[in-house]
Amino acid sequence: MNIGRPIQFDPDVAVAKAIDVFWANGYDATSTASLMEAMSLSKSSLYQTFGSKHELFMRCLNDYSSQNHAYLRRELAEAKSAKGFLIDFFRNAISGNRKDNMRGCLLVNTACEFGISNKSTADFIKTEVSRMADLFQDVIEQAQADGEIAADKNAKHLADSLMVSLYGIRVLGKLNPDMTEMGSLMNQLILQLE
Amino acid sequence: MNIGRPIQFDPDVAVAKAIDVFWANGYDATSTASLMEAMSLSKSSLYQTFGSKHELFMRCLNDYSSQNHAYLRRELAEAKSAKGFLIDFFRNAISGNRKDNMRGCLLVNTACEFGISNKSTADFIKTEVSRMADLFQDVIEQAQADGEIAADKNAKHLADSLMVSLYGIRVLGKLNPDMTEMGSLMNQLILQLE
Repeated sequence: MNIGRPIQFDPDVAVAKAIDVFWANGYDATSTASLMEAMSLSKSSLYQTFGSKHELFMRCLNDYSSQNHAYLRRELAEAKSAKGFLIDFFRNAISGNRKDNMRGCLLVNTACEFGISNKSTADFIKTEVSRMADLFQDVIEQAQADGEIAADKNAKHLADSLMVSLYGIRVLGKLNPDMTEMGSLMNQLILQLE
Repeated sequence: MNIGRPIQFDPDVAVAKAIDVFWANGYDATSTASLMEAMSLSKSSLYQTFGSKHELFMRCLNDYSSQNHAYLRRELAEAKSAKGFLIDFFRNAISGNRKDNMRGCLLVNTACEFGISNKSTADFIKTEVSRMADLFQDVIEQAQADGEIAADKNAKHLADSLMVSLYGIRVLGKLNPDMTEMGSLMNQLILQLE
């Protein structure tokens, strides 16, 4: 630990450490002491740089979401087809829970912890949900233009349905280390994309 | 408040009060003092009757789930058709979030709070998820036998998909007081049931 060191540190690296702590424990159960230790920061550095525990948390939500979106945009750019991207995305969402040691999704966990009792987190997550549903809709429309998904399907309805399925997968994945029960789910999701 | 009263009380009524407190605040954020106050019980009565905070919580999960299942079985018995039951169920799941003041579902909230870090809650919720998916599957198979849902659909896959959608709805409902964004979701769910 480097508590008290007065000099430079990389805020992005520190935030990445904070994300891990909040993700593993939730907001309420995360102590300032555990943040200081994980981020290798003194209390004064932490508050000077990030304002408050809640402001740090909002920064974490923001970085977490930006990284996820950047990752998805890269995957989408490299995907062989729009429909293939969606199928791979959900396959990863199901098996990814395993890799992530059942931490689930930080946004889903936060939605469950706070609901609308905290306006800033609720507004943030709602915006992210819309952004993700919009991305799904864009990809579905591309797949329709490419003849991979039937053109008469309502892309927005299908995108909303995928979004809800994703959030449900994130909850159930927290309880299912092997996700074997999720195998059949994938079949049903693929059926919707025909 | 009746703290300290040494005489009879109805454990079911007391548990119903405890469910409200846990549901509103989550497990960790619920203090023994708030349970004592809501249940009108002294600390000794509470521990003598229910063992520990965690044992009381497990009793709450059990009563909550039993009541939900009893309600669903009644609704199913009274439904005009199997498919109609499923559609009404999801319509209620979407609009029900409004009535419940964004508390979401106690099982979903608990899955998000504990994940697999608490084996007894994880096992309980996994069993309830299977029980609910089995109920969906029974109803889908009945609807297929009645010619309401295409017989070539895989009832188990469809049931798992509905289960995941339900959990996703419960998360998103916590953030959406009016659920207007969910309107299109209903269309997509109904499409799956054709």
